[in-house]
Amino acid sequence: MPRGRTLTVLTRRYDGTLGGRAPDELVVEEPLEIRLDDVRVATTMRTPGHDFELAAGFCHGDGFLGGTAVVSIRYCATGSAVDTGFNVVSVSTGGRAPTPEPRLGTTSSACGVCGSASIGELTARLRPLADPVAFPLEVLARVVDRVRPAQELFARTGSVHAAAAFTATGEVAVVREDIGRHNAVDKVVGRLLLDGRLPARDLGLFVSGRASFEMVQKAWAAGFSAMVAVSAPSALAVQTAQAAGLTLAGFVRGGALNLYASGRPA
Amino acid sequence: MPRGRTLTVLTRRYDGTLGGRAPDELVVEEPLEIRLDDVRVATTMRTPGHDFELAAGFCHGDGFLGGTAVVSIRYCATGSAVDTGFNVVSVSTGGRAPTPEPRLGTTSSACGVCGSASIGELTARLRPLADPVAFPLEVLARVVDRVRPAQELFARTGSVHAAAAFTATGEVAVVREDIGRHNAVDKVVGRLLLDGRLPARDLGLFVSGRASFEMVQKAWAAGFSAMVAVSAPSALAVQTAQAAGLTLAGFVRGGALNLYASGRPA
Repeated sequence: MPRGRTLTVLTRRYDGTLGGRAPDELVVEEPLEIRLDDVRVATTMRTPGHDFELAAGFCHGDGFLGGTAVVSIRYCATGSAVDTGFNVVSVSTGGRAPTPEPRLGTTSSACGVCGSASIGELTARLRPLADPVAFPLEVLARVVDRVRPAQELFARTGSVHAAAAFTATGEVAVVREDIGRHNAVDKVVGRLLLDGRLPARDLGLFVSGRASFEMVQKAWAAGFSAMVAVSAPSALAVQTAQAAGLTLAGFVRGGALNLYASGRPA
Repeated sequence: MPRGRTLTVLTRRYDGTLGGRAPDELVVEEPLEIRLDDVRVATTMRTPGHDFELAAGFCHGDGFLGGTAVVSIRYCATGSAVDTGFNVVSVSTGGRAPTPEPRLGTTSSACGVCGSASIGELTARLRPLADPVAFPLEVLARVVDRVRPAQELFARTGSVHAAAAFTATGEVAVVREDIGRHNAVDKVVGRLLLDGRLPARDLGLFVSGRASFEMVQKAWAAGFSAMVAVSAPSALAVQTAQAAGLTLAGFVRGGALNLYASGRPA
């Protein structure tokens, strides 16, 4: 069973003078080791909860599954310490997935880029979206208001990212929160994968922060038809969305948005 | 010579009705491959500029240098394509640094955690700060106002992280911006490393976002005495700062802050 997702600590407020100790609810951050067929493929700092979805979504989005099906997911006790038993998750394809190759390289803000030397390598495995669904702009402009009530951790801590899947009529299908924005997306994609809903052609992806290259790559890999970011996209994210045929909107606030890619493959 | 740090694209504004195309300045995001003594140790998505600092700071903060000195840093032409010539940087220690071992594992929001199975492993290489400098709270509370005028990319794009080093009297020594928050810190640390200013006992580290575990780890590795985050720390970040003896302040706004760790080693 995963640990709690928040922890209350005692902090002191300074506002000209230093006050006494008072409780403050912080988001929990712990490492999760992800294994595929018993080989470690990633260690990520995440907020506990929905760990199986995170592991499945990560393996899918990063191409580790190679089109094979997930047979089972379980926590692994490592035997080394009691408290690491729920920080290791193993995804099994029954040995059908390609053997992960060791990659020399850590990444800072680039989970999907590890070990790849060029954009060409990264996008070679993905084809432009086939016949993406056209999402009404008024739906894209209002999705932030629809997701907000489900951002429980954000309401309590003021510092956690959210991702959500939504339909062309604005219905919110899945919402996940995590200290890592990539993790939040992986959890949403993992949920859809486990529900047999990928590729997610009939769905859009909402992210509470910016749209970076990797976020667009994850949306593309999952087959979403549209993506909405509360903040700005990077230049490369826009180029990638255009190549994918993915509708990309950013700066979504107060019912308005900027439309960066309109869903027609470049 | 690195490419530009922003790119202007044509976008359409929707606010009930869809407007015509108008220019919008976006931050540039490109992969940078970092090599240490000709072995690839990382590929990160970064905003071009200060690439040598980023490479040096990354190698230092992640422990790849192993205490050895940087002899030279250069761009590598890969020979494969003209436009990748400035996306590969090689840091040389003349072969004195320990040989990097292949790590199987990518990370989402955890650049410093790659391949490590436990917090113990991560912190084993760092000792609590020796005699950290006590920074006045009024300096910590005002550093955000001092850094803001130097956040040029943020002013232009509204979507880029900043990190800065500052003194106990509030003077800003170094400011760097990047699409990746880890990269911004690595660039600051790399600048200090190349200037022979590490460990940075007389300096504090400012970050424009949250204080995650890895951000605190980077501050600890560089020897800063204090760290200030505009947004919240994670629970693990607070525990790590307490273990390090690092003063940690968060939610720094309007001259007020929350004090999460006071600089006395736990």
